Amino acid sequence: MKDFAGTPGTITGLVLRISQCLFAAGSITSMASTNSFFNITAFCYLIASMGLQVMWSFTLAFLDAYALAKKKVIHNNVLVSLFVVGDWVTATLSLAAASASAGITMLYFSDFGGCQSGGECLKFQISVVLAFLSWITIAISSLIMFWILAAG
Amino acid sequence: MKDFAGTPGTITGLVLRISQCLFAAGSITSMASTNSFFNITAFCYLIASMGLQVMWSFTLAFLDAYALAKKKVIHNNVLVSLFVVGDWVTATLSLAAASASAGITMLYFSDFGGCQSGGECLKFQISVVLAFLSWITIAISSLIMFWILAAG
Repeated sequence: MKDFAGTPGTITGLVLRISQCLFAAGSITSMASTNSFFNITAFCYLIASMGLQVMWSFTLAFLDAYALAKKKVIHNNVLVSLFVVGDWVTATLSLAAASASAGITMLYFSDFGGCQSGGECLKFQISVVLAFLSWITIAISSLIMFWILAAG
Repeated sequence: MKDFAGTPGTITGLVLRISQCLFAAGSITSMASTNSFFNITAFCYLIASMGLQVMWSFTLAFLDAYALAKKKVIHNNVLVSLFVVGDWVTATLSLAAASASAGITMLYFSDFGGCQSGGECLKFQISVVLAFLSWITIAISSLIMFWILAAG
């Protein structure tokens, strides 16, 4: 196993997990505060996917914080394999949800000649941007996890 | 470098590349044969992304076929790094395009109470399904490439 920035049990690893949590939670908050999100399947899927992301990243942030506090190394093969699968599944779902919502936001904003829902439009946009930021951070974690599994 | 099914210069690697090409080309054909795709940004993006996928996968299929015919091993570090970057970029773009189009197809089919464009609806659905199939095959190739780079 290799030990570098971003691996489980490091400060950068913890920062990545907390960022994923915060971006995903922000995306859910922004989307759920609109009145019409439940009419559109992709927006409901975004909330579900970001909810899963929050739970997954929070659990791993907790594990990272524990490993840091106790100065334990959590690089055993079974744990890393589990992290890789979880990271890849959540990363794929997050990208799919963010893209589907972005497609619909684009449809409303440019293809239909401007969004007609006033303040809600901005909330949809903020939610999509935060979902993409959450995906970028989980993608970095996924690549690092896959790297330490393959290099192990 | 490890040598297993799906790596560059193997029969399975070549089959994966050809499948990516065929699925992406099918997705483009189905989408481009509709009259209204250019009104929707996500559908135009799907065509652009699948076009890039066809070019990339065709080039790598050609390289695989060349390596098989000449019995050459094309596992040097520079080539594999290039393959990894290209595969990841095209896989991410394909998933994003397929998801954005799927979000809009869902919007038309279920959220708006049924698609009104007759035969075009089926073509949109076929195009999205083929784009996802193309993404699944490029995702397998990407994981294999990243594995041989990390394990190298």
